[in-house]
Amino acid sequence: MESEPLSNDQKQQQQQEPMEWAPIAWAHLSAVRNQSPLIQCITNYVSMDLVANTLLSAGASPAMLHSVEEIPDFTPHIHALYINVGTLSPDWLPAMKVAAELASKSGKPWVLDPVAAGASGFRLKACLELVGLKPTIIRGNASEIIALSNASVGPTKGVDSSHQSMDAVDAAKRLAEAGGNIVAVSGVVDIITDGKRIVGVHNGVPMMQKITATGCSVTALIAAFVAVDPSHAFEATASALSVFGIAGEMGMDIAKGPASLRIHMIDSLYGLDQAAMLSRVHIRSLP
Amino acid sequence: MESEPLSNDQKQQQQQEPMEWAPIAWAHLSAVRNQSPLIQCITNYVSMDLVANTLLSAGASPAMLHSVEEIPDFTPHIHALYINVGTLSPDWLPAMKVAAELASKSGKPWVLDPVAAGASGFRLKACLELVGLKPTIIRGNASEIIALSNASVGPTKGVDSSHQSMDAVDAAKRLAEAGGNIVAVSGVVDIITDGKRIVGVHNGVPMMQKITATGCSVTALIAAFVAVDPSHAFEATASALSVFGIAGEMGMDIAKGPASLRIHMIDSLYGLDQAAMLSRVHIRSLP
Amino acid sequence: MESEPLSNDQKQQQQQEPMEWAPIAWAHLSAVRNQSPLIQCITNYVSMDLVANTLLSAGASPAMLHSVEEIPDFTPHIHALYINVGTLSPDWLPAMKVAAELASKSGKPWVLDPVAAGASGFRLKACLELVGLKPTIIRGNASEIIALSNASVGPTKGVDSSHQSMDAVDAAKRLAEAGGNIVAVSGVVDIITDGKRIVGVHNGVPMMQKITATGCSVTALIAAFVAVDPSHAFEATASALSVFGIAGEMGMDIAKGPASLRIHMIDSLYGLDQAAMLSRVHIRSLP
Repeated sequence: MESEPLSNDQKQQQQQEPMEWAPIAWAHLSAVRNQSPLIQCITNYVSMDLVANTLLSAGASPAMLHSVEEIPDFTPHIHALYINVGTLSPDWLPAMKVAAELASKSGKPWVLDPVAAGASGFRLKACLELVGLKPTIIRGNASEIIALSNASVGPTKGVDSSHQSMDAVDAAKRLAEAGGNIVAVSGVVDIITDGKRIVGVHNGVPMMQKITATGCSVTALIAAFVAVDPSHAFEATASALSVFGIAGEMGMDIAKGPASLRIHMIDSLYGLDQAAMLSRVHIRSLP
Repeated sequence: MESEPLSNDQKQQQQQEPMEWAPIAWAHLSAVRNQSPLIQCITNYVSMDLVANTLLSAGASPAMLHSVEEIPDFTPHIHALYINVGTLSPDWLPAMKVAAELASKSGKPWVLDPVAAGASGFRLKACLELVGLKPTIIRGNASEIIALSNASVGPTKGVDSSHQSMDAVDAAKRLAEAGGNIVAVSGVVDIITDGKRIVGVHNGVPMMQKITATGCSVTALIAAFVAVDPSHAFEATASALSVFGIAGEMGMDIAKGPASLRIHMIDSLYGLDQAAMLSRVHIRSLP
Repeated sequence: MESEPLSNDQKQQQQQEPMEWAPIAWAHLSAVRNQSPLIQCITNYVSMDLVANTLLSAGASPAMLHSVEEIPDFTPHIHALYINVGTLSPDWLPAMKVAAELASKSGKPWVLDPVAAGASGFRLKACLELVGLKPTIIRGNASEIIALSNASVGPTKGVDSSHQSMDAVDAAKRLAEAGGNIVAVSGVVDIITDGKRIVGVHNGVPMMQKITATGCSVTALIAAFVAVDPSHAFEATASALSVFGIAGEMGMDIAKGPASLRIHMIDSLYGLDQAAMLSRVHIRSLP
């Protein structure tokens, strides 16, 4: 990846509040479209179709290679790694770990989606082991982030959150501080923190939660955004969450239900232009 | 699940013929929307996307956890279990059995979709073992129900039926009587029997068979309906088959082919209201 | 499969140039619709949904059975086999080989999609072993065909090609001559060769590459077309590539992005009529 999406002006803007997030998010999306980063996805069966189509529509190049035999040859060529434990089984875990270690060692960003982290002891242990391999970014719903932060199997509603994102702010901060990574909590307002800074992304529509794998897909999009701006993982994460939310908002204008929303959301992501971005990005610092 | 979808009036109606099926089906759908039951799905790779989206659009909460390691922790929290053998391999079978046993022991309803039951000796044996674990409901096409009832590998056209549903009425009754469960046979007319009673569901459109995983998805919907009314598995099964068929009929009004039908069907399921239900439910007793 | 899609007149036409490809392609599509061939698909997780829906919309009957235990019982009943290594892992490879051997021995056509053949040593070795089992047809992008022909792990962009199809003409010819099979290279112009003849298919639209699994799906369609005309694998391959491309062109007329294109493409494939075919098929001999 050659160019840096953030200009010096934009970097200066980051020093002051209020930040001008819209041009930053637009710069990230433009960089993904121009550079078409290669994103290795080791993700759950349910999500593979939507994850791949989300990445393609954003301009990235997805590759769903998950076999441990291939990682030494293939993973060095990727620009970011995405790991999602949604349909985890013991035979998939070694490849996840090897790929995460290789990404970490070679300075490639990698992103973890700890789906249903608190649903079982097996799953929690696997997620904590992956957290130990230093993901650049962790994106989950509130229940998942709380389970990870507390390292406890907890009351969970399967893959759906039984908490609001704001309930998980403290857990997210502790998790980010402990691991030195970025933690994002999806919800009506998406929360992003590095342990100190916190921003909220106010884009998106509730019906997106009625489409399976939207959470998985936005995490994949985060991987594509951080691939083109690895030194600004915090900003890339907020940008990706905002862009995906905007695609959902624009899709909602013509959707008649969750299935047509899914179609229009992906079409909108593909066609998203600067004017729509500049008027719709809604990211705010939280106290 | 707290409330009972069937009122006393509705239960009385069940004693007499003709039953008023429409309010019963509406009560089931409303209960799924209100209670959002958690449905564990151990299903085939092809179907996972549509199964999850069908459940979400109906108001249920799908969870595709399939690893045997997780079942002791997770399965006690679900409201119903759905097992589908479409892309069966030996490593998936133990989890199916353990989950089915756990569901049966704890009085949770579980539903079996014996996809292509007669396609091989391996598959037939696996399906018969699962039948032996007392599924609350079995839903298949005519060829699958005949293969199960005869316990024989037979002429099969892959996952598509080479028989009409009416050809399988006797097989379905025998299977239901032998196992003490509900058996549903999908087709132009869907047949539901407990071994004694038989009803036919006349909703749906032929083009639904040109969409992969519609059979898998309606079985998942049956699991969601029986989750909110476990003591009326017969009625819940008929309701789910009717509701899914109606969603297909309404989708067909604006579809231009199988792919747009899939979209409009899911949108229709999400938006289905009482007026449409009351005018469209078409369930009749068979002699 | 009883009837032959190619009439004597059409066979005579094949002796002369310019061939009348449009009626041949229409005859193939009509034969698939009339005969509904059973196509066993051992394919990657990402593609299963679109592959199955492509085959259903074309009139074929897909079956995603992939377990080695089932192949001796099931594979003898199929009309063609489709193998795709997209999400290959070592546990899937034996079934691919056993099914391919059984298809070859019993004279059933089988088609290989060597996804990302050059991405790793493991994957290349597996692909070369499958090539050694004499696929009737191999369909890949330029990078994949070059990797296979050179038997070398090479610079690859995951599953996307880093070459144009015309770059792979020589590699395709060598591969076809060495194996005695048909080789197709997808691209802006699709190339089909048996080592001597070469035709180019000029149908399709660029946005199809922004939809995951379109390559996988057209390979499945090739399997359905060769199933109904096994003695004309070259013509069946060109027909399938043209038909799929036309479906994309017609879908593009009303699509607003990649996700709606996917829907309209499948709808168009389902509804494709003779008039559209005769005016749109664009297949030409290459020097």
